[in-house]
Amino acid sequence: MAPYNALMDVREVGEAGLLERIARWVREGTASAKGAPTTKGPSLSTLCLGIGDDAAAWRPQGALELWTTDTMVEGVHFLRRQADWHDVGWKIVAANVSDIAAMGGTPTYALVTLGLPEGTQVEEVERLYQGVLALANLEGVAIAGGDVVRSPTFFVTVALAGVAGEALLTRSAAQPGDRVAISGSPGLSGGGLRMVLQGGKGNTAAEALLWEAHFRPGPQVDLGRRLVTAGVRTAIDTSDGLLDDLAKVCLASGMAARLERDHIPVHPALRQTFPEDYWDLVLSGGEEYQLLFTAPPEVMERVAAQEGGGVAVIGEITSGAPGKVTVVDGSGRDVTPPRGGWDHFRP
Amino acid sequence: MAPYNALMDVREVGEAGLLERIARWVREGTASAKGAPTTKGPSLSTLCLGIGDDAAAWRPQGALELWTTDTMVEGVHFLRRQADWHDVGWKIVAANVSDIAAMGGTPTYALVTLGLPEGTQVEEVERLYQGVLALANLEGVAIAGGDVVRSPTFFVTVALAGVAGEALLTRSAAQPGDRVAISGSPGLSGGGLRMVLQGGKGNTAAEALLWEAHFRPGPQVDLGRRLVTAGVRTAIDTSDGLLDDLAKVCLASGMAARLERDHIPVHPALRQTFPEDYWDLVLSGGEEYQLLFTAPPEVMERVAAQEGGGVAVIGEITSGAPGKVTVVDGSGRDVTPPRGGWDHFRP
Repeated sequence: MAPYNALMDVREVGEAGLLERIARWVREGTASAKGAPTTKGPSLSTLCLGIGDDAAAWRPQGALELWTTDTMVEGVHFLRRQADWHDVGWKIVAANVSDIAAMGGTPTYALVTLGLPEGTQVEEVERLYQGVLALANLEGVAIAGGDVVRSPTFFVTVALAGVAGEALLTRSAAQPGDRVAISGSPGLSGGGLRMVLQGGKGNTAAEALLWEAHFRPGPQVDLGRRLVTAGVRTAIDTSDGLLDDLAKVCLASGMAARLERDHIPVHPALRQTFPEDYWDLVLSGGEEYQLLFTAPPEVMERVAAQEGGGVAVIGEITSGAPGKVTVVDGSGRDVTPPRGGWDHFRP
Repeated sequence: MAPYNALMDVREVGEAGLLERIARWVREGTASAKGAPTTKGPSLSTLCLGIGDDAAAWRPQGALELWTTDTMVEGVHFLRRQADWHDVGWKIVAANVSDIAAMGGTPTYALVTLGLPEGTQVEEVERLYQGVLALANLEGVAIAGGDVVRSPTFFVTVALAGVAGEALLTRSAAQPGDRVAISGSPGLSGGGLRMVLQGGKGNTAAEALLWEAHFRPGPQVDLGRRLVTAGVRTAIDTSDGLLDDLAKVCLASGMAARLERDHIPVHPALRQTFPEDYWDLVLSGGEEYQLLFTAPPEVMERVAAQEGGGVAVIGEITSGAPGKVTVVDGSGRDVTPPRGGWDHFRP
């Protein structure tokens, strides 16, 4: 007989046993199923068929259906020995929710695919689902299904649906003269990662803030919806870093952009922890789920008044070479760093 | 300078370069974009935003939205050195389309996620997309987006949306007295795999048929829709093998089933190629995208008349132990094989 609370290998329960457990975790761990209604999302009321059939089914709710997917792979996006599975589950949902937020939509249903190596413990998968459900419940997302396969490398893919009205936040609607703005203070998540890689434990208040920014990022769904309502039509989330994501907006819109470095908010925790190189993190640190958006001056004034200190206007869209982003300091000097950003394939 | 037509490593083009190419392959390879309208699916006309933004967006088209996902992993679902990437692309879309067919729905949009190891060649990815697009075009499915990540192990995940009317084919609606029926002849795909593993090249007509069944399976979307219209309410696709998938229907419905072995169609190509052990393949061979369905006798009579030789009634749903499937021969003798089926995790 196995000792009480012993770790159980997924081989012991088999595929069917694991899928049964996942269905139970989702059922029992879904907020509104426990009588504690989520504050967001009409998801559960319109889900006709969830886990357990060939496909999930729901009633369409908005003018438009949105759909995105993101993947995290062991050894590429996280180190299995360092990562808490709860954090991995939280983050993969956060990355997807952030994509829906960056469209101005509301996330609804998720499909979760797990690639599990031999020797994976049932308790590890349960902990991952706890992280998935923690953020899903916060955002009103229901887990509608998924797939579990054997894989030499652990990976998790989430595909997330959402709904939106007729107006969207796209990458391709930026116009010359648009102001460029961001929510939050960029670089905190990148700072958290660098801190952990350098052995930091999050013991000081500054380090704890960086840790939280990296491991428990909060996507900006409400902000995205307020931006659409205010008339903003261009946005991206800062998952690849400020410069890289602004370059993507510029490329998609056929525009260039100029950023005023003095206008970019730098969080004191970041400056304090990395006094030498915080600018690198501010401009190029990724895995952040804030929104970067552009709008004509009159719209941006309205947004700035409405959002207060939550957003900062940091530059302007120009009609230069498509995709080109220039950073200038207070005296107008070009201080653009060499192009950074995260590329999955370049050495 | 690289020699003409040399293979190009994905590292040379980088992530952005690869995504640009994927967007172009999809644009140029999508049937209706080339003026050759697909026979199925209203997909492209309602797609508002495809590859290139934070999420895809489309207008809802039916009473219900359907959603499924399936994954293939190198070394688990196929061997990279043996597999043609075109076949892998075809099959991962087929597996997903089959899930929508088994709900009685029509597939619409796909998200394609690729995990690519270092050293992957751009031409390999292009060939995979050719396979993805070949089946997607046949079925009227548009590629609406996806994700590309680095991964030590190659994998491909497709998430597929679909639409349906109010009535669905679920796994949980089987009733005592329902007749059990299948489309096609089970075991051909499993026979194709066994043939290839034993060194068969598909040179004879029988072997060519098995090869085709394994590498180019055709999902049954039209049949699924006709079944719904005829009043059928219970179906599953036979991706895990006849017995295993019938057991799933029985378990979900709280029913048992009895199959008449003499009524199960056995294709001559299978009997000829595996004269000793074709029954094993017929009853337990997986990776097949035919439909297994149940319905009251009067509905099944209508379906049988309508479908002719395309479907065979092979047994009956009973009120025995949930999930129990018994196979009997012509004299009523129990010839049920030991429980087989595909389990991703059991040793």
